[in-house]
Amino acid sequence: MMFEQLGLIGCGLMGGSFALALKKAGLVQRVVGYSKSPSTTERARQLGVIDVEAPSALLAVSGADIVLVAVPVASSEATFKAIRHIVTPQTLIMDVGSTKNDVVLAARRGLQELAGSFVPAHPIAGKELAGVENADAGLYRGHQIILTPTGITHADHVRRATDVWQALGSRVVHMTPEAHDTTFAAVSHLPHLLSFALMNAVCGQSCGQNFLALAGPGFRDASRIAASDPVVWRDIFLGNRAEVLAQCQLFRDQLQLFEAAMRNADQSVLEALITQASSARAHWRMSEIS
Amino acid sequence: MMFEQLGLIGCGLMGGSFALALKKAGLVQRVVGYSKSPSTTERARQLGVIDVEAPSALLAVSGADIVLVAVPVASSEATFKAIRHIVTPQTLIMDVGSTKNDVVLAARRGLQELAGSFVPAHPIAGKELAGVENADAGLYRGHQIILTPTGITHADHVRRATDVWQALGSRVVHMTPEAHDTTFAAVSHLPHLLSFALMNAVCGQSCGQNFLALAGPGFRDASRIAASDPVVWRDIFLGNRAEVLAQCQLFRDQLQLFEAAMRNADQSVLEALITQASSARAHWRMSEIS
Repeated sequence: MMFEQLGLIGCGLMGGSFALALKKAGLVQRVVGYSKSPSTTERARQLGVIDVEAPSALLAVSGADIVLVAVPVASSEATFKAIRHIVTPQTLIMDVGSTKNDVVLAARRGLQELAGSFVPAHPIAGKELAGVENADAGLYRGHQIILTPTGITHADHVRRATDVWQALGSRVVHMTPEAHDTTFAAVSHLPHLLSFALMNAVCGQSCGQNFLALAGPGFRDASRIAASDPVVWRDIFLGNRAEVLAQCQLFRDQLQLFEAAMRNADQSVLEALITQASSARAHWRMSEIS
Repeated sequence: MMFEQLGLIGCGLMGGSFALALKKAGLVQRVVGYSKSPSTTERARQLGVIDVEAPSALLAVSGADIVLVAVPVASSEATFKAIRHIVTPQTLIMDVGSTKNDVVLAARRGLQELAGSFVPAHPIAGKELAGVENADAGLYRGHQIILTPTGITHADHVRRATDVWQALGSRVVHMTPEAHDTTFAAVSHLPHLLSFALMNAVCGQSCGQNFLALAGPGFRDASRIAASDPVVWRDIFLGNRAEVLAQCQLFRDQLQLFEAAMRNADQSVLEALITQASSARAHWRMSEIS
């Protein structure tokens, strides 16, 4: 499996890392990139993430046999529309979005009869710092990639998508867009939401800056993902809001149990609640492949 | 500055790491240790964390010129009472508790006229895995130590306590017990509470285990501190519950802003909330010394 040209739309952390990984693995001859901000596209070329700057999404896709759409999820539909006239049934198109139902819908609307070329993909990898400067050929290695093909997705594209990610050292998992969105509302969107709200709660206090100066490793880790990209996460929360709000309610219910136990000074209930969490976390290991 | 004998009460992660650090720095000749569980005390000796097993807190302190009380904070008063008859005004006594108002009160009640020998200490360091097996001579190096002396604390003990921690590579910060408890309710106790409740919210769902199998690096970091010791954290939450509940309410208010913006599909409010958090987190660096 070898591609001639990757059309990269969105030269940020995720897209840039995919381009670098594909090049490093010798799986692509040329990367043509486009970002909404011309300075990002230029920076991507200067850093060697892309080989050629394209002035539009359409021109980035022109001549490409593989396309990665790596834009905030709410921009997916407009992106698919912008490239539709140049996509062929042979073009493999993927995304890297953290929500899948909304992106699948965007592909149907934007790509119409070509939506079968689109293999929805969500790599479970990231960094707290966004931007092409942080792109990293090893970002996806050892991590899971969720593919959520639907009834209309071409089976050969699903196979090729699976092969590409495996060649980059990722473990590919297939699931439905619905199961994906429920799962990641719980284990990704909710933790991000909590991390953002934690940061704002601490900083919103008059002594917030003094508090932060004394924060240690626990705070560092719990708040790490709060540094994530605002537009990306705005779109994720809105794109999956029913599931995110449902998970948020489940979280609030659990938090309330802790608060009640504290108010009642109920040692045994509080210890049981913490033991449940502590034991579950101590037994959990992130799925990784070497 | 050189001590003859450390009396260690509580041979867990925090106490064990202090003993190892003191030995490695050549600051103590002998460590006599006691833990409530005899098997922990024995294990601490086998691992070389302590030199001599004591059958009681009192006997661990007998002959000690420095004492570290490293027990769950609610056990502080009983521990101080148990050792009071063997403490002299020359004995430097410290703790490692994450709350300070309650420990200061416990010292007044337990040590009575000898409470001036007690220098309340809270090292801003830890690991997700408790227990003497995880004790580490380098645990405190490069981290901050908060000392919260009160009006009755002997100034020479405060100086010696400062010297000891600095010799271990820590940065010593002095503050009042009240300021300490407010600060750490915000930057430590609240994040732990959120992390515990997150874990329980995810695991409490029928598909919770499937969700966890797909969780990635964001979840790993946000939930790391959920593996903390249940009894230690039960005592912290109860020992500082007014401040923890107040911080929890501030957090809930912030979370509600996010939820309202999602319900209203208000892109600009949601983006502004995330930008505030993201920018604050991107500019924050944990205070570390080399």
